[in-house]
Amino acid sequence: MSKLVIVGTVAFDAIETPFGKTDKILGGAATYIGLSASNFQLDAAAVSVVGGDFPQEYLDLLKDRNINIEGIEIVKEGKTFFWSGIYHNDMNSRDTLATELNVLADFNPIVPDNYKDSDVVMLGNLHPIVQIGVLNQMTKKPKLVVLDTMNFWMDTALDQLHEVIKRVDVITINDEEARQLTGEYSLVVAARKIHEMGPKYVVIKKGEHGALLFHDDNVFYAPALPLEEVFDPTGAGDTFAGGFAGYLASTGDVSFENMKNAVIYGSTLASFCVEKFGTERMLTLTQDEVNKRLQQFKNLTQFEIEL
Amino acid sequence: MSKLVIVGTVAFDAIETPFGKTDKILGGAATYIGLSASNFQLDAAAVSVVGGDFPQEYLDLLKDRNINIEGIEIVKEGKTFFWSGIYHNDMNSRDTLATELNVLADFNPIVPDNYKDSDVVMLGNLHPIVQIGVLNQMTKKPKLVVLDTMNFWMDTALDQLHEVIKRVDVITINDEEARQLTGEYSLVVAARKIHEMGPKYVVIKKGEHGALLFHDDNVFYAPALPLEEVFDPTGAGDTFAGGFAGYLASTGDVSFENMKNAVIYGSTLASFCVEKFGTERMLTLTQDEVNKRLQQFKNLTQFEIEL
Repeated sequence: MSKLVIVGTVAFDAIETPFGKTDKILGGAATYIGLSASNFQLDAAAVSVVGGDFPQEYLDLLKDRNINIEGIEIVKEGKTFFWSGIYHNDMNSRDTLATELNVLADFNPIVPDNYKDSDVVMLGNLHPIVQIGVLNQMTKKPKLVVLDTMNFWMDTALDQLHEVIKRVDVITINDEEARQLTGEYSLVVAARKIHEMGPKYVVIKKGEHGALLFHDDNVFYAPALPLEEVFDPTGAGDTFAGGFAGYLASTGDVSFENMKNAVIYGSTLASFCVEKFGTERMLTLTQDEVNKRLQQFKNLTQFEIEL
Repeated sequence: MSKLVIVGTVAFDAIETPFGKTDKILGGAATYIGLSASNFQLDAAAVSVVGGDFPQEYLDLLKDRNINIEGIEIVKEGKTFFWSGIYHNDMNSRDTLATELNVLADFNPIVPDNYKDSDVVMLGNLHPIVQIGVLNQMTKKPKLVVLDTMNFWMDTALDQLHEVIKRVDVITINDEEARQLTGEYSLVVAARKIHEMGPKYVVIKKGEHGALLFHDDNVFYAPALPLEEVFDPTGAGDTFAGGFAGYLASTGDVSFENMKNAVIYGSTLASFCVEKFGTERMLTLTQDEVNKRLQQFKNLTQFEIEL
């Protein structure tokens, strides 16, 4: 079975949307990535850090989904990373109300020995130095390294971000971040410039407008499923990344053609994530539901023009 | 051969984009719709009005592309409709600098006798009263009536707009207009409300984010081709509509499945339109170029997940 190692936050989130608000609930990039990837046949491990305040039941919940948690360090005297945010009416923008780094401030990731030869490495959104730290622990060149990042690191750690970008195969960022990273408005031109920074594959996430996959002069477009209601967008990008990396790890095929399928799986899983608050929807998801939605994606995009 | 009758403006446009500006050039909804539809095997006619200042060469240009111009009235003592606008840097928004209705103010459309039994009627963006006037002249129920409109008529002639909406099979509007017309932010919910107003098919144009086709509970998503540069978006929506209606008229098949193909043809033709100022690119377009770009749309959207 292929191995996938995931680094990212495991956290508390408090979320407010036009539909309601939550207390501190389970969140974090590695959590969403792990839950999404657990829909595939693979051996996945999460590398992260939590405080003594983090409930055992949340860790069990990951373990129950066959996510190895040896690499989740528990700092007994510390507090878990906390993020709080409020979404605006259009759900496309949000304000951060609180970011308490807590144990994340001194996070030194340790990849469990058994995952140092993982086939796929998924670097969730974190300080680029942490992401590089994980890459440096790999004893075998992974088949694929996928990087997620955000504008915050472009503002505060651009040099280190470029260091890690240089070393990955795939980068996933949103459209505004692609523009910020390259200074180019056209996403086609931005993707080309990012190719030149290192990654052979560039995934640009456009939220409700779907996602673009670029490779050399090839491009693939996966729409987002049009939904009646987006209940809570938190974790959608990480769920996308987890589905993308999980599918590629489980199939072992990292060709561009198969990466198209991975983008569709990522979009499919993300379309569930936004239906309820936090991780709630992902925790009840069945294979049958996933297959039905994949069929919806086919109906949504496939056409019959003969050339 | 199927007949398509098109009503819309034939006009002068003056356009400014970040790439340059034009003097008065050929424009108008019926012009773009007609040029786009002329890529298909059909018998098309334009119904419009121009002034004595309108060059014969522009009329010849339409005639040369097999567009019947009997229905384009020439008001010798009048001046042709003129629109002028400037696009902002992101090309997604524009300011209108001038709108001179001129001969359009008293436009009373006359459908040539030979086109009163047209198979497909394409009602380009115009006052709803003019659009109703065209429908009232049809002697046979058309196989398909397609309506394009805009927010201006929602602001100034909403009752008449609802009258014409009631009588059409397909409506094409952009996302903001769909929201304005229904008061719903979710495009899925907006499309359902528009269904209830009459049209069985709702096409929502999202510019660089593509187009959605809704029919009952079915939805189809055609992306826009990611382009390095959008040179001038003027006429893209009309070119889309012309490709959509032209393809359906030429195939004679107005099923939902074939409408998916029509949306792809519309998007394909629109992707050319924006590459140069005004109608310039559409005038040099070859069948071979269209086929190559259709293949690009296939590569862009088709994937191989087996369920």
